[in-house]
Amino acid sequence: MNFSSKLLEDAVNEFSKLPGVGQKTALRLVLHLLNKEKEEVNLFGNTLIRLKAEIKNCNICRNISDHVICEICSSNKRDKETICVVEDTRDVMAIENTGQYFGVYHVLGGLISPMDGVGPADLFIDGLVDRVAAGGVKEIILALSPNMEGDTTLFYLYKRLKEFNVPITTIARGIAFGGELEYTDEITLGRSIITRVPYETAMMK
Amino acid sequence: MNFSSKLLEDAVNEFSKLPGVGQKTALRLVLHLLNKEKEEVNLFGNTLIRLKAEIKNCNICRNISDHVICEICSSNKRDKETICVVEDTRDVMAIENTGQYFGVYHVLGGLISPMDGVGPADLFIDGLVDRVAAGGVKEIILALSPNMEGDTTLFYLYKRLKEFNVPITTIARGIAFGGELEYTDEITLGRSIITRVPYETAMMK
Repeated sequence: MNFSSKLLEDAVNEFSKLPGVGQKTALRLVLHLLNKEKEEVNLFGNTLIRLKAEIKNCNICRNISDHVICEICSSNKRDKETICVVEDTRDVMAIENTGQYFGVYHVLGGLISPMDGVGPADLFIDGLVDRVAAGGVKEIILALSPNMEGDTTLFYLYKRLKEFNVPITTIARGIAFGGELEYTDEITLGRSIITRVPYETAMMK
Repeated sequence: MNFSSKLLEDAVNEFSKLPGVGQKTALRLVLHLLNKEKEEVNLFGNTLIRLKAEIKNCNICRNISDHVICEICSSNKRDKETICVVEDTRDVMAIENTGQYFGVYHVLGGLISPMDGVGPADLFIDGLVDRVAAGGVKEIILALSPNMEGDTTLFYLYKRLKEFNVPITTIARGIAFGGELEYTDEITLGRSIITRVPYETAMMK
């Protein structure tokens, strides 16, 4: 692209580094910002700078937080004896949005993926083992995405955690609510037959 | 969404103000930035702040520029006697990318659109009239998008400019190169028959 201004070009380049943002989209976003008031653009810029400078990861669960200990870990309304292990902050937000979970979390910061060069040492797994080893945990819920990396991580965590004799569960896999049986893929449908549950368990809760 | 951090929420809100960016996309972009080095995020933020603080509009053509007079207007390689009138900076970039135009530009900053409350006074039209009135202009090319707003603006500009007896042209409309005749809409195809050009004109240039 032929830019009429170096400042414009710099801003477009910064935006186009973001995932899913190409040069044309970046230009559209920058021209949108140029039409805004100076205060609004300054707020945008300063919010990003403050974000990176001041944000923390909770010392206990590694969730993104404004404080050294996050709100969930420091709340006395949450059940500290149940730990839900997730990949990242988005999963914490998704589970919190369900309003169905009242325990605490443990954010791994990724999944084991040899293809991408991510091994167990790159994740916050030792921290989880330490939490369980310290005692007082009654259940560990592994809530990882049902894909290759998720299953690899699940297996690794199970091996590391089973010695503590704490019940380890995973979130249920099967046909999504509102889904059509005939359009469900064979693996999901096949597994959901194998892991069928008593009617009372499935419907009465 | 339930944010675990006010800083995170602020940053997501800033991103989701951008056109075409929803909350989920904004969250993805912010988490991407959080994984970057502090220097990179600071550069992003400061680039935006500098952009708004330092960018200028060329005093002659109103194109976005780093200087009071833009590079095109101050270049002695450009033909100052031909003015190409466009809606905004993106159109200047698009025409510059063709490598087919060597005159100067005039950026209106929008199109007349009564529906959106944009009248002639909101655009940089008086500046264009002044440039033409000052003399030395041999052709005015109106390069506006062929839609309702573009045609309204075209008509208004024609009325304002015709008294100066400078040739006024518009960019050719018709079937796009590489396009299929049978898939072209009726209006374009109909108009392209009415405004047919001699073979020599169309092919020899």
